[in-house]
Amino acid sequence: MKKLKRSARLVEMTQYLLTRPHTLISLTAFADRYQSAKSSISEDLAIIKEVFEEEGLGELHTLAGAAGGVKYTPKMADAEALSIMNGICRQLEQPERVLAGGYLYMTDMLGQPGLLADVGRMFATAFANAEIDVIMTVETKGIPLAYATAACMNLPVVIVRRDNKVTEGSAVSINYVSGSNKRIQTMSLARRALKEGARVLIVDDFMKAGGTIQGMMDLLYEFNAKVAGVGVFVESGELDTEERLLEDYVSLAKLTAVDMKTKQTTVVPGNYFNPIEN
Amino acid sequence: MKKLKRSARLVEMTQYLLTRPHTLISLTAFADRYQSAKSSISEDLAIIKEVFEEEGLGELHTLAGAAGGVKYTPKMADAEALSIMNGICRQLEQPERVLAGGYLYMTDMLGQPGLLADVGRMFATAFANAEIDVIMTVETKGIPLAYATAACMNLPVVIVRRDNKVTEGSAVSINYVSGSNKRIQTMSLARRALKEGARVLIVDDFMKAGGTIQGMMDLLYEFNAKVAGVGVFVESGELDTEERLLEDYVSLAKLTAVDMKTKQTTVVPGNYFNPIEN
Repeated sequence: MKKLKRSARLVEMTQYLLTRPHTLISLTAFADRYQSAKSSISEDLAIIKEVFEEEGLGELHTLAGAAGGVKYTPKMADAEALSIMNGICRQLEQPERVLAGGYLYMTDMLGQPGLLADVGRMFATAFANAEIDVIMTVETKGIPLAYATAACMNLPVVIVRRDNKVTEGSAVSINYVSGSNKRIQTMSLARRALKEGARVLIVDDFMKAGGTIQGMMDLLYEFNAKVAGVGVFVESGELDTEERLLEDYVSLAKLTAVDMKTKQTTVVPGNYFNPIEN
Repeated sequence: MKKLKRSARLVEMTQYLLTRPHTLISLTAFADRYQSAKSSISEDLAIIKEVFEEEGLGELHTLAGAAGGVKYTPKMADAEALSIMNGICRQLEQPERVLAGGYLYMTDMLGQPGLLADVGRMFATAFANAEIDVIMTVETKGIPLAYATAACMNLPVVIVRRDNKVTEGSAVSINYVSGSNKRIQTMSLARRALKEGARVLIVDDFMKAGGTIQGMMDLLYEFNAKVAGVGVFVESGELDTEERLLEDYVSLAKLTAVDMKTKQTTVVPGNYFNPIEN
């Protein structure tokens, strides 16, 4: 790359960092890339760090020393997250979204790149400090959420199938009971999809009793893998506590009431927005 | 937002543009946001434009006049695309990827955010000038490619299901014949997922004879929607031309030979890289 002026270098470094989240980039690599002194690079990074942090885009961590470098951790500021989530809750409350069985139609919302990028940044914020090797979801509607989160966290995604396709090679299948309607279902994952000991963040679009997520946890057990966290976009808060199969999860929104006659629903921000208990 | 120095403003504007591709942003909005004169904003944009274009990140189009503004169109330079695709072809040729039926295991690759971002930018480059309202794919493996492309093009995604789930409401289903193995299969799409007259870019991971994509086209016909383009990640080049159901598509890679005994495959860059015919 040809030597750039500071103004051009700032533009280039900003895009370079934004497109490589959760990746340690050595100062030497930047200095070589821009044919500039490390001291200039450090000054540039200080400017970028200040803007990113003031704008609530996330953190720029600088590690000192010979093996040092800089790492961008995308985050979303609490106030921005709450404002966005309130807007999402209003959308989720639209009466035409109520479907049979107390489900909500939200496929259209999960097709919007802007909404997905926001939700991905919220999950990335919630799990920024967890040690995670891979993000897992089950087809189909959790997939875009898993990828949006993965893009922010620079992690691979594995998708649990509801069948066992020929194109996947040998697979591990389990049966699980969907907690809300008590049906027995099957899910499977290609044997080569997950390494032993992998730390897994489970992401899904909707959780009622948690049977599907419990199924994914059982599957992880078969792979000797570990649950590093659970994130759901919308949880149904209509169940009694004893009906819920799991307790430790992060939800971004909570469906508190569905009136099937009037098609009125109430959706509020989820436990992601609860004050942290010490 | 508080008034920023030029250096900080460049960082902020770069991230603002990168996270809002294919979106017209008025100069007035920028001037208000940064409490700066439009002339300063224009100078900043000229710097950003030069860096983006030199780095092959895409184009920054400035529209003059009262309704004017700036729009970022992500693209990938040909040389970078070819270099990345050659690396992807070498990965696809790994012998352990060969599965029964001449399929290739590539689920792991389609789980990598970096690869997906690259492929999304290639499709966004190929279809940058097409008029497209929505990107469509069929579950499951095409989904990450569709979202990666959608993120670059700022377009919504609709996912065709291989079943008809209760959570989708009423749906249109069609039967189609998978071209390669002649089996009759079903695909369906929620009635509310697609508007009449929508111009649709179809994206999928793998194309043999093209039966699945032809099925999606038939489905579009039922919705009175139009095909605006077809992009496939890998096409199988093992078929005779008369066995292929469609001609007009963009492929990023082409599987030219599979030896099931030795598990040797040859994968070359697809027709995306062919010289343009005039």
